[in-house]
Amino acid sequence: MPQLGLLHGRVWASLLGKLLRPPGAVCIGAVHSHSQGQRSMWVAEAVLVSQLKPHQEKSNFIIKTPKGTRDLTPQQMVVREKILDLVVSCFKRHGAKGLDTPAFELKEVLTEKYGEDSGLIYDLQDQGGELLSLRYDLTVPFARYLAMNKVKKMKRYHVGKVWRRESPTIVQGRYREFCQCDFDIAGQFDPMIPDAECLKIMCEILSGLQLGDFLIKVNDRRILDGMFAVCGVPESKFHTICSSIDKLGKMSWKDVRHEMVAKKGLAPEVADRIGDYVQCHGGVSLVEQMFQDPRLSQNKQALEGLGDLKLLFEYVTLFGIAEKISFDLSLARGLDYYTGVVYEAVLLPTPAQAEEEPLNVGSVAAGGRYDGLVGMFDPKGHKVPCVGLSIGVERIFSIVEQKMKTFGEKIRTTETQVFVASPQKNFLQERLKLIAELWDAGIKAELLYKNNPKLLTQLHYCENMGIPLVVIVGEQELKEGVIKLRSVASREEVAIKRENLVAEIQKRLSES
Amino acid sequence: MPQLGLLHGRVWASLLGKLLRPPGAVCIGAVHSHSQGQRSMWVAEAVLVSQLKPHQEKSNFIIKTPKGTRDLTPQQMVVREKILDLVVSCFKRHGAKGLDTPAFELKEVLTEKYGEDSGLIYDLQDQGGELLSLRYDLTVPFARYLAMNKVKKMKRYHVGKVWRRESPTIVQGRYREFCQCDFDIAGQFDPMIPDAECLKIMCEILSGLQLGDFLIKVNDRRILDGMFAVCGVPESKFHTICSSIDKLGKMSWKDVRHEMVAKKGLAPEVADRIGDYVQCHGGVSLVEQMFQDPRLSQNKQALEGLGDLKLLFEYVTLFGIAEKISFDLSLARGLDYYTGVVYEAVLLPTPAQAEEEPLNVGSVAAGGRYDGLVGMFDPKGHKVPCVGLSIGVERIFSIVEQKMKTFGEKIRTTETQVFVASPQKNFLQERLKLIAELWDAGIKAELLYKNNPKLLTQLHYCENMGIPLVVIVGEQELKEGVIKLRSVASREEVAIKRENLVAEIQKRLSES
Repeated sequence: MPQLGLLHGRVWASLLGKLLRPPGAVCIGAVHSHSQGQRSMWVAEAVLVSQLKPHQEKSNFIIKTPKGTRDLTPQQMVVREKILDLVVSCFKRHGAKGLDTPAFELKEVLTEKYGEDSGLIYDLQDQGGELLSLRYDLTVPFARYLAMNKVKKMKRYHVGKVWRRESPTIVQGRYREFCQCDFDIAGQFDPMIPDAECLKIMCEILSGLQLGDFLIKVNDRRILDGMFAVCGVPESKFHTICSSIDKLGKMSWKDVRHEMVAKKGLAPEVADRIGDYVQCHGGVSLVEQMFQDPRLSQNKQALEGLGDLKLLFEYVTLFGIAEKISFDLSLARGLDYYTGVVYEAVLLPTPAQAEEEPLNVGSVAAGGRYDGLVGMFDPKGHKVPCVGLSIGVERIFSIVEQKMKTFGEKIRTTETQVFVASPQKNFLQERLKLIAELWDAGIKAELLYKNNPKLLTQLHYCENMGIPLVVIVGEQELKEGVIKLRSVASREEVAIKRENLVAEIQKRLSES
Repeated sequence: MPQLGLLHGRVWASLLGKLLRPPGAVCIGAVHSHSQGQRSMWVAEAVLVSQLKPHQEKSNFIIKTPKGTRDLTPQQMVVREKILDLVVSCFKRHGAKGLDTPAFELKEVLTEKYGEDSGLIYDLQDQGGELLSLRYDLTVPFARYLAMNKVKKMKRYHVGKVWRRESPTIVQGRYREFCQCDFDIAGQFDPMIPDAECLKIMCEILSGLQLGDFLIKVNDRRILDGMFAVCGVPESKFHTICSSIDKLGKMSWKDVRHEMVAKKGLAPEVADRIGDYVQCHGGVSLVEQMFQDPRLSQNKQALEGLGDLKLLFEYVTLFGIAEKISFDLSLARGLDYYTGVVYEAVLLPTPAQAEEEPLNVGSVAAGGRYDGLVGMFDPKGHKVPCVGLSIGVERIFSIVEQKMKTFGEKIRTTETQVFVASPQKNFLQERLKLIAELWDAGIKAELLYKNNPKLLTQLHYCENMGIPLVVIVGEQELKEGVIKLRSVASREEVAIKRENLVAEIQKRLSES
């Protein structure tokens, strides 16, 4: 932490604590037996101590979610559900099967898979038995599943939470617990057909979510390695230079160059050669151009990658999405396990946004080919080639949420269709009988949990919650064998024979 | 571990290891630099070592899921999805909002909530920062959410995984990671209306799942405490005797009595008095009978509980589910936080099952009232009364899976509607164009990722996967501007104008 002159360290920490405390956090100051006077800094009030044993030494206990995590409120859950439904139905449209794996894996399963990011893995405490870690992504568990069950071919999707101990920058929609939606195709097939389908899926999802214009950057690990080789990067530095290149988009070329030269000891002329390449991006014509590149065309690996990219462009053209795809020599992707094509979808800033923030608005989907990962789990090293993608639903979720706030959209958090009310006292029994009838007919219905609620309270509840229909039962109705059916929007009421009520409601609901 | 005579401890461990190894487990024997000859016991074959650094000391690495956890295969996912859909739509029918909380909580949040079961909580390793634990249920996080956000009233559902370090007895459908489906009503309302709705929900779900006949046992913590008091149990032993009573159903009365007397030091005559009560179960008439009970009717707490149960029986009669409800004085429920009514749904054995296994087939849903839990998180101790239920989907899942196996039901793991095929070589481009058209129209479609697959291979794939329709494009069709549409079941083929294909497919799908 930088020194802050006059402020004493602890004062600073306390101030920081106040500033960083999330708005919902509540502090329980536990007054324990041997320090009766101690109180929470924030809530100097009577506190509940009966549940805490006197020998407990913790003095303050802030009620909050763990750092980098959050609850999803009902409003957020509605948005989340809509996004996930769209994503999953796209995965199913492409013939994927569902799969689920445990939240934690044996620690060894995750070892040596994530390069420099391994430090971000959450480990479980050794409570006797196996050493376990929370999963870091859904890809490694998928590869473990394939190897363990000797599955040679599979198209699967997986929606689930993953955990990474990153410094959370909540503003950007980055959390320590977040949801991933993965689609992967495992198996030995003719080149680039599954890879092209992955790009098609990303396009379908991003178009479907209506997030604005987007672009999918594509590159190939073999082209990157070839580029490093012909530029004169020593092979021992491929990995670390690759992770510097990965920062382009978040950092300017000048800063990345400085990191490579000053921190990683790359010769300036080598950095400049790389600089020439990583500025290149374009369509299939750039692939052709690179085939003619005097240096790159001498590298076998690069040529393989370029050949596959050419095929990929042919297929995405047939899929009608070529204009969304950009061959971008600066795209690196951080993860160790990629072996071939890599891709990353970015939302394009509107002209106004572009002026404010010239750099990348951040990737919303990404993936690539990893032909070696399954083999790492197989006792004989048998490989199962894989290609896949992951949708960054958290970032998408933030964007959609922000949009809804901007447009002031009101979200219904329940799906209740009918409210059961009574204008008179002592009608709880009738209300209960009536609502059971509705539930049994599959109608979504609610009532107030009060013996004698006021009619106005009941009608207000419907308006607040957006419930479209009210059924009203009172003395008069009971006598006549009818129920009043009221439309909340129009305030129109009609009397309906009790025995026809369910049918009438179902008719109205199917019409609306 | 018990001593086992002649077998040396390590030999025993190795034997046990073999016996307990799940069928899918694969062992990677890592041959490391300084012990070239070492091999796995189970797989004495060439092994992949390139990914493991030479300094690693682990010699064997078994590819498996952690103890007590499992992957869900696509077949299992289909069953799971159907069950969860039914459960969630019932929760929504009753007006519940969705909520999600993080997989882990601050360790303090879970402290002092689960009584003797606290030892089963998974802690995360202290990697600097907060001390965290994986959630043990969904109820405590819900209470934490209510207190933290000062929510006084809420009806929410939550479907999510929870983790408990139990000794897994996989046969019974018990795991260390399992899914819970919770519905809870928080707020101050008129008595027993929300409680009755919880019982109604359990009935709707269990009837809907068609698991066979079931019964919901109901009791009240205040009746239990009153019963202990009037039988002469010292107050300090209420909790531990309650947890003995909780074992009835899994253990005979004789064994439970023995535990209470021999292990917990209860006077035999006290145990016998309890024994008289816990044999009682019945309908509302038993409630009336207990009101007249010379001892129980002297206890204020018991009378309160009995009064509420009487009201509960009135409401469940109006809901039409009274015959499913049984007042059972032996029902205790283990968790510390219950304060009022408690309930547990059990499947009733068929006559054949009853003969084999006279004891409980196990609870499939349970819950109760917990009026004090939210107050434990509130700095001022403000209470928010709550009542809720949890559906034991894992057990239900095992039962449904077993049933499907018995009846040999085949499960489709994908939803693909149309397969895109070609009888000729060099038609990949046409297939790709065609399938993109289908995807863009929202049709679930697949093709083989091969340049030139054989027609028979393609048709076999459709039969294996249960895909109902095939579209076939070849030279002839291309020339005539048509596509052949084939029904896999009837093998009938018709030629359809290319421009009408999507409409025709949609028509066929809507009819089927």
